[in-house]
Amino acid sequence: MDYELYMKAALMEARKAFEEDEIPVGAVVVVNDRIVARAHNMTQRLNDVTAHAEMQALTMASAQGGKYLPEATLFVTLEPCIMCAGALSWAQIGRIVYGARDTKRGYGIVENCISSQSLSLLHPKTEVVGGVMEAECAGLLKEFFGKKR
Amino acid sequence: MDYELYMKAALMEARKAFEEDEIPVGAVVVVNDRIVARAHNMTQRLNDVTAHAEMQALTMASAQGGKYLPEATLFVTLEPCIMCAGALSWAQIGRIVYGARDTKRGYGIVENCISSQSLSLLHPKTEVVGGVMEAECAGLLKEFFGKKR
Repeated sequence: MDYELYMKAALMEARKAFEEDEIPVGAVVVVNDRIVARAHNMTQRLNDVTAHAEMQALTMASAQGGKYLPEATLFVTLEPCIMCAGALSWAQIGRIVYGARDTKRGYGIVENCISSQSLSLLHPKTEVVGGVMEAECAGLLKEFFGKKR
Repeated sequence: MDYELYMKAALMEARKAFEEDEIPVGAVVVVNDRIVARAHNMTQRLNDVTAHAEMQALTMASAQGGKYLPEATLFVTLEPCIMCAGALSWAQIGRIVYGARDTKRGYGIVENCISSQSLSLLHPKTEVVGGVMEAECAGLLKEFFGKKR
């Protein structure tokens, strides 16, 4: 599977968010080498803290592929937060590929802490790949927040 | 604040879910002693694992009260899961009042584990009250799963 190809599609979504003055995070869901959902962060437009790119993409993918998505890969430009990790766990997503790390609000902080207790925020079968096109994904966020200052 | 009064309203929502053959969990959001959102679990109907009662209620409350809900109390018949705890954290909800404990998928397992590291799944200002009308809330779930066997 060509991670960069799909991460580029997620980045296109993130750029749409940027243009709409939303925190630029984008996501796509891929099943059998086909993109079945594309979404970007819409928390401002929808006035809804739950409208993260991953949540929108999951809801879209489920509408087509069913509630559980063990065959699917979610590509997202930023490490998922705890809410999104919880949602991806319920969906039993097959794989998560993310770009930039989120050392403040990413799920990884909690995950690292609980893994010693054999706990996980994700489904046990979910594979995780981080840091794909990290510079591009992080760069877009940096540009967005730089503009805000 | 009369916790039982509002938990009864959340239970009414849970009963609606029960009648629709959904896992019977209901939630209401209260601001200034007024219910601003009522919702129940719709994961089956919407074919969407993210359609928990709390998520729906948050989205509805935000549409009226704004993205952040520090003045709001969420009443929910079952202890929130990690996804919902993450969403409630983003919303900076003022208070969470829940009925039945969820020792398997409730956020409490992880919360207990990370609290020793001064981490929390919730916003630092969120107050939590558990076990309100616990027997009624748990009873409805027990009846539902008993019927399924």
